[in-house]
Amino acid sequence: MPTPLIFSAFVMNTASHILHGVWRQPGARQVEFNSLDLWVDLAKELERGLFDVLFFADVTGLYGDFDGSYKKHVDIGLQIPSNDPSVILSALAYNTENLGFAFTSSILQEHPFNFARKISTLDHASKGRIAWNIVTNSLPNAARNFGYDDLTPHDERYEWAEEYVDVTYKLWEGSWDDGALLQDRESGLHGDFSKVHRINHVGKRYKVEGPHLVAPSLQRTPVLFQAGSSPAGTKFAAANAEAQFLIAPTPDAAASKITSMQALLPKYGRRAGDIKFFQGLSFVIGSTEEEAARKDRELDAAIDDEAMIAHLGGAMGIELGTNQLDQPLSDVKTQGIQSVLNWVRESIEGREATVRDIGILTGKRSRLVGTPEQIAGKLKAWQAAGVDGINVMNATIPGSYSDFIEHVMPVLRKQGLAKEGYAPGSLRRKLFGHDTVPETHPAAAYRQAFH
Amino acid sequence: MPTPLIFSAFVMNTASHILHGVWRQPGARQVEFNSLDLWVDLAKELERGLFDVLFFADVTGLYGDFDGSYKKHVDIGLQIPSNDPSVILSALAYNTENLGFAFTSSILQEHPFNFARKISTLDHASKGRIAWNIVTNSLPNAARNFGYDDLTPHDERYEWAEEYVDVTYKLWEGSWDDGALLQDRESGLHGDFSKVHRINHVGKRYKVEGPHLVAPSLQRTPVLFQAGSSPAGTKFAAANAEAQFLIAPTPDAAASKITSMQALLPKYGRRAGDIKFFQGLSFVIGSTEEEAARKDRELDAAIDDEAMIAHLGGAMGIELGTNQLDQPLSDVKTQGIQSVLNWVRESIEGREATVRDIGILTGKRSRLVGTPEQIAGKLKAWQAAGVDGINVMNATIPGSYSDFIEHVMPVLRKQGLAKEGYAPGSLRRKLFGHDTVPETHPAAAYRQAFH
Repeated sequence: MPTPLIFSAFVMNTASHILHGVWRQPGARQVEFNSLDLWVDLAKELERGLFDVLFFADVTGLYGDFDGSYKKHVDIGLQIPSNDPSVILSALAYNTENLGFAFTSSILQEHPFNFARKISTLDHASKGRIAWNIVTNSLPNAARNFGYDDLTPHDERYEWAEEYVDVTYKLWEGSWDDGALLQDRESGLHGDFSKVHRINHVGKRYKVEGPHLVAPSLQRTPVLFQAGSSPAGTKFAAANAEAQFLIAPTPDAAASKITSMQALLPKYGRRAGDIKFFQGLSFVIGSTEEEAARKDRELDAAIDDEAMIAHLGGAMGIELGTNQLDQPLSDVKTQGIQSVLNWVRESIEGREATVRDIGILTGKRSRLVGTPEQIAGKLKAWQAAGVDGINVMNATIPGSYSDFIEHVMPVLRKQGLAKEGYAPGSLRRKLFGHDTVPETHPAAAYRQAFH
Repeated sequence: MPTPLIFSAFVMNTASHILHGVWRQPGARQVEFNSLDLWVDLAKELERGLFDVLFFADVTGLYGDFDGSYKKHVDIGLQIPSNDPSVILSALAYNTENLGFAFTSSILQEHPFNFARKISTLDHASKGRIAWNIVTNSLPNAARNFGYDDLTPHDERYEWAEEYVDVTYKLWEGSWDDGALLQDRESGLHGDFSKVHRINHVGKRYKVEGPHLVAPSLQRTPVLFQAGSSPAGTKFAAANAEAQFLIAPTPDAAASKITSMQALLPKYGRRAGDIKFFQGLSFVIGSTEEEAARKDRELDAAIDDEAMIAHLGGAMGIELGTNQLDQPLSDVKTQGIQSVLNWVRESIEGREATVRDIGILTGKRSRLVGTPEQIAGKLKAWQAAGVDGINVMNATIPGSYSDFIEHVMPVLRKQGLAKEGYAPGSLRRKLFGHDTVPETHPAAAYRQAFH
């Protein structure tokens, strides 16, 4: 029997996360993002379907302009409004027992002392089910929301991230020893002072005295997600990540990324298997191939291609607009990520790719279409490429997840590609078999370090 | 009939908030602060008892040393560990309908852009039941946890607070006009771009471009609590607070504070009634006077006087220790708050007050002891002094609240001093009759300000 895949639901506390325009469809409850009910109902549904993780993306500002402003963003709800994911998690944790909760938090948005305390509180509240998706920030507006004139240069952001996680590791792993919390009513000792330490961190950006204000939670350090794919991001992930999120165009491309990342791990004192790889995919499921193809066409029609272009351009730092839709892609100049543009260019045959094609193709990207059996076959191929888990993107909430749970999960379960039940314990124990980071992780170096 | 009093439960996400040592008592569930169950159960109990607000105090560092270290703090659990209150509120909001949630957040701990987003998300999640207790920071260790070498000077902290709230007011009131969120499936318009504005704040400490990432919540600006009593703190409260928390030693002392604050309001363009005053009190309730007196002695015996001294000294910036317990109070030098020391000195008759008396007397301070009828009589006197609400401090959680709800509330209700049921709507509507801040509040000045 194969190893069961890990399943994560990839969402955002907003109406229009990735597939823009789809919120207009009947039954698309993502427009209710302001309400706890939407998210509690989704968490319960995911747990019923034996998903492992509910994963919240996040931003701390607007994507770059389209047509010279953020009008398109507001028009279509392109990640604005977007709400803080971290403060809704306790309601979700209270209503579930096994589902893990990953959320994105940028080094830009919160001081590491406060952030570490928030994570520890949430890890207690959820009995060890929290994961942190570590991001820097690539949006100029976000930088300007936090006092900077512009983006911090890319590689400097990763140096900053190194110090940021370092502070949090010291607080999570080194400030409180095991057994420091006594709560002994007889003796009157609530804690053991000899086991609670200042960290006295002094670095380039942060000075943090400590001690950490929260006693160790079940996982101490949350499960660490990271998605960086630049050279600096890849190094950071190799050193720190326990789960990496990919959006590879094909299983072969995923295999190549995974192999090179696995090869990099020993350089950072880590082992193959220390990182789980999650491929981002969306699904269009039909009871027949014809039905799936029809639903696929309906989804294409529902997607707002201009918003897809605004999103991608805004994310890459290329300002695009409606009068450029027919411009050849080769004329688009960017300092940013070329891989998506290359992929769009390579996907068009017999003519030159245009800006308009970005919208059409990024809407279709990473989408598996077919019957449950066909989808199971494709997932098997992704697993064969080295993928440990699937980050399931959605067109509609909860529809995309309830469809997957109702139709695809049973087929996967029969084939051993999905588990029959939850393993007990914390999120890290479910994924890796132990509650805290292994000795090979840099956070572990701070255990007993402040005596 | 008199106006019903407003009731707030004053707690902290820690084992030992004010009455130190009492967590050792059987039934003191506050030791379970790491668990959501404790807080959800308490919120439900408070709502059953028609409390208006669950109010979380907070710190972002340790109180100053006692006996040369923070050993006493860890020994007795003196607000360490203490968990982040903000991230547990959504679980509490999901399990209640009418209870309001006030939490403390320091200008030191979070950037106002991120903080404003957190508040707006929570106000949506709770359908308008969030209050913010605005604090600066008076703990040197907290300053050193956030990169400062020492405390920011007192008056400069209030200048900082003025800019901090200014940024949040711009985001909450000015960035999004009413009606900006459309979510119109027919037209495909999710928002109205003409109603979503950048704020372009540029000040001494903050530069924030905006727009706010969250659409307006029911209250927009949360209900604003503040407890400052210094000259700078009083001015800040007169300008900004909607609720002020007092710990006056007697109704007369409260009346004098309230009268002078009411007199100050017009200077800031505000009206009498724009601020509700909450007196902090704890209660020892007996079915007879004798039983109450016995319980009172038991509570005295349960309180750790040294921890009370450590707390007060640590809060006031006076380093005390066990070898000073018999030192006359007149020898204690402090730049900080003198009022508590004066009160201790005046409370001791026939001999000179010592450091030890601080512990004994601060443990007894603001405690009402008696039968439910006697307590109702005393509360009537506090109300006559101008107090609008009672901030109910606890010895044990949930015991202090369930006792009050079971024994005192029915007597108060009969006398018209407690309400018969909840008014509908947001927390501000329940307290003041409207959802958003009135025109007299400085936040209102930013409505329509960024067109």
